[in-house]
Amino acid sequence: MNKNRKIVIIGCGAGGSTAAQFARKTDRKSKITIFEKDKYSQYSKCGLPYVISGNINQYNDLIEFSEEWYKKANIELYLNTEVNRIDFNTKIIYAKEDDTKIERPYDKLIIATGSKPVIPPIKNISKENKLIKGVFNLRTIDDAKKIEKYVKKDDKATIIGAGLIGLEMADSLYKKGMNVCVIESLPKILPKTFDEDISKSISDKITKYIKVYTGYLATEIEIKNGGINKLHIRNNLDSTNIVIDTNLLILATGTKPVLPDLNQQDLKIGKAGGIIVNNKCETFIKDVYSVGDCTEYKDFITKKPINIGLGSIVVRQAITAGINSAGGKYELLEGFLQTCTSEFFGMEIATVGPTIENLHDFSTISAKYNGRSLPEYFPGGKPITLKITINKKTREIISAQGIGDKAAQRINTIACAILNKMNIEIFRKLETAYAPPIAPTLDVTTLVCDIILMKINRNQ
Amino acid sequence: MNKNRKIVIIGCGAGGSTAAQFARKTDRKSKITIFEKDKYSQYSKCGLPYVISGNINQYNDLIEFSEEWYKKANIELYLNTEVNRIDFNTKIIYAKEDDTKIERPYDKLIIATGSKPVIPPIKNISKENKLIKGVFNLRTIDDAKKIEKYVKKDDKATIIGAGLIGLEMADSLYKKGMNVCVIESLPKILPKTFDEDISKSISDKITKYIKVYTGYLATEIEIKNGGINKLHIRNNLDSTNIVIDTNLLILATGTKPVLPDLNQQDLKIGKAGGIIVNNKCETFIKDVYSVGDCTEYKDFITKKPINIGLGSIVVRQAITAGINSAGGKYELLEGFLQTCTSEFFGMEIATVGPTIENLHDFSTISAKYNGRSLPEYFPGGKPITLKITINKKTREIISAQGIGDKAAQRINTIACAILNKMNIEIFRKLETAYAPPIAPTLDVTTLVCDIILMKINRNQ
Repeated sequence: MNKNRKIVIIGCGAGGSTAAQFARKTDRKSKITIFEKDKYSQYSKCGLPYVISGNINQYNDLIEFSEEWYKKANIELYLNTEVNRIDFNTKIIYAKEDDTKIERPYDKLIIATGSKPVIPPIKNISKENKLIKGVFNLRTIDDAKKIEKYVKKDDKATIIGAGLIGLEMADSLYKKGMNVCVIESLPKILPKTFDEDISKSISDKITKYIKVYTGYLATEIEIKNGGINKLHIRNNLDSTNIVIDTNLLILATGTKPVLPDLNQQDLKIGKAGGIIVNNKCETFIKDVYSVGDCTEYKDFITKKPINIGLGSIVVRQAITAGINSAGGKYELLEGFLQTCTSEFFGMEIATVGPTIENLHDFSTISAKYNGRSLPEYFPGGKPITLKITINKKTREIISAQGIGDKAAQRINTIACAILNKMNIEIFRKLETAYAPPIAPTLDVTTLVCDIILMKINRNQ
Repeated sequence: MNKNRKIVIIGCGAGGSTAAQFARKTDRKSKITIFEKDKYSQYSKCGLPYVISGNINQYNDLIEFSEEWYKKANIELYLNTEVNRIDFNTKIIYAKEDDTKIERPYDKLIIATGSKPVIPPIKNISKENKLIKGVFNLRTIDDAKKIEKYVKKDDKATIIGAGLIGLEMADSLYKKGMNVCVIESLPKILPKTFDEDISKSISDKITKYIKVYTGYLATEIEIKNGGINKLHIRNNLDSTNIVIDTNLLILATGTKPVLPDLNQQDLKIGKAGGIIVNNKCETFIKDVYSVGDCTEYKDFITKKPINIGLGSIVVRQAITAGINSAGGKYELLEGFLQTCTSEFFGMEIATVGPTIENLHDFSTISAKYNGRSLPEYFPGGKPITLKITINKKTREIISAQGIGDKAAQRINTIACAILNKMNIEIFRKLETAYAPPIAPTLDVTTLVCDIILMKINRNQ
């Protein structure tokens, strides 16, 4: 490798941009170039619902690194620039900025092309390959700006998809005074992140504020004045139809990897639909790395490939690819824990590890505990529900889900336990911090273990 | 062992009472008896400052288990009953309730006699073995009730000892509108729980509200009308004297184990002044257990004996002794992590592992990170400072200290890492939960590791 290695990165989302930063930290001399097809440098996509709700003042606040920042870091950034072709043999990138063609050789390439929304097959949803008026995705600042024009107190808003983004968006629109309805085709909300019982508890709380239809498939849009006027949904079990009046429909039906227009056979796409990478974020092509939503990597517990689009994962992959592409050494752990959190309707939720549906290869024991964040005698304690699942054979903790006070931080502690393949008997003995205004002597984190141990003893 | 074993417990604090509960859970048939010299059943001593501040309405709220509760659990509870003698050979307890003598044989004995305040050698502090008027400890409900009579807006209050209890009490009295002054003989506040740099950061914050003298020894009390009127303190370095006007003086100068009146040679008292117990909470005498503030046990990292009086430790020992005394099997971990938290003057602090002074046998690397609880673009983020210390040789995390938002829960995660002897390189890769309103993609918990790793690389 010559001294001034050329690192080219496709995509300036959290993945590409973080990779660039860590490449620069690792090697001050590399020539680093980022090609981004959008007009913005790295901004927080996860922050979009909070601009709509008014929590965050303006879209510009979401931009985490300005164009100026890249200049100072000596990272060459091309916005509005699409990569058309990659020649993996000659190691040349062919891109286009407006009408200017760019050819750029690379020593190391990082593909961070992210993901794009899945458009559900609903009658009349699009016309000439464009979503019809009043129907939107929520992936970009431009999407959010368009949605905002439809946000009006007492108007109806409908969201398809009761995943994290769908529910965050529901909360935002509810805060703006809209009548919000969420449609989910699967039988429970948060189907990919929470088990049925916890999902039910969350659902019980949010349905005080919004209407939720689970087990309903959106089938057809009725159009009036060129835009959406009604949405037809059909019950999956009894096929009954409901017609919902709505002038705003947001699609939160998941994403799929954006694969650069290239020879996918060389790159190898896996079962989860993403570019396969190893623990160094290397693809199957020499000197080509890939990170973020366009990739797949294995789950820590099941070892099966996952593509789930969590910012926490994107960033950790990006650090890995950034350091390695610049000549450093860094490896991912043996899989992702999928630690994850969100907040809506005043409720914090968090999870780590696979849902029970994804643990069917394991014999498991689960327990749930409904406790409080503070000792009983101390005023202001808040409810907290925690569920832990263990591998029945090894007694190792393999997943956990929580609702309530500081759920995310409590789940982080359990994430640390899972990473260490910690036995429930040992984890139960962890000395957690105690003070009357902060936590009880035996935290919910400990007490839920007791229920698991009781179940183990009962089984013996 | 006959079927209905007789378990006798001396002391109905958190230690004795929790042991009784777990003994009862383990064996429904045991005859369980508790002797308590005070007039209250288990109540939260840690909650006392919060009754004085008004956070908690009344002292009765602190009682965690009523006399009624023990009756229902079939646990015989003697209040106002002092144990005078234990015959370890015949296995008989001799106690006294008012004028009634009680003789009670035991199969298993649990000593949970707790600790008592250390009275500093200050001239005029006591008369006829009683603290003079206006000078108080804070260990019991009766202490707190007496203190409350002196709590008056704009009056002066002085506290000797800037440990956790001293500062919690300072906050309570400040909230009641008093002018509070804290005296600490050591050169820093929280000398036993925090390193100098973190102690300094905490001190910088609290001195906005109260006066703190560190490195000053209280030497003499001036008396007027039979009570304290002035306190003399002397600077340890230059011996200058300061005289403080005060009618209320609270002693928060630590505690020492209460040892039952018995043959201490048999029982074996260790270097930290407590009854030596093993990981089953057994003492050196057959069938005699001991738990809580009257014991000592080893620190997880240094393996040296500690006696520190944390509720979280008391309860974990009590579970162990309770289960084992009733015929079950339960072992403590190979030492205590000393996870610990508190909140005063609107600031949450937490710590795990020994302070740097107690790590002199180790070659260490420490790093501190001042970050925020939320991503920069999200409003409402709060400051958080986190310090981690690793063993330079093994790179295992051995202590951590934090100030700020959810410090306790963040420290719990690090406690889990320490318990697993986790290497800083691996801990840095832990996937922490991310969502804009809850935590950044790279939490302070992760970022502080980066500084450690930079220091490691620089040293190489």
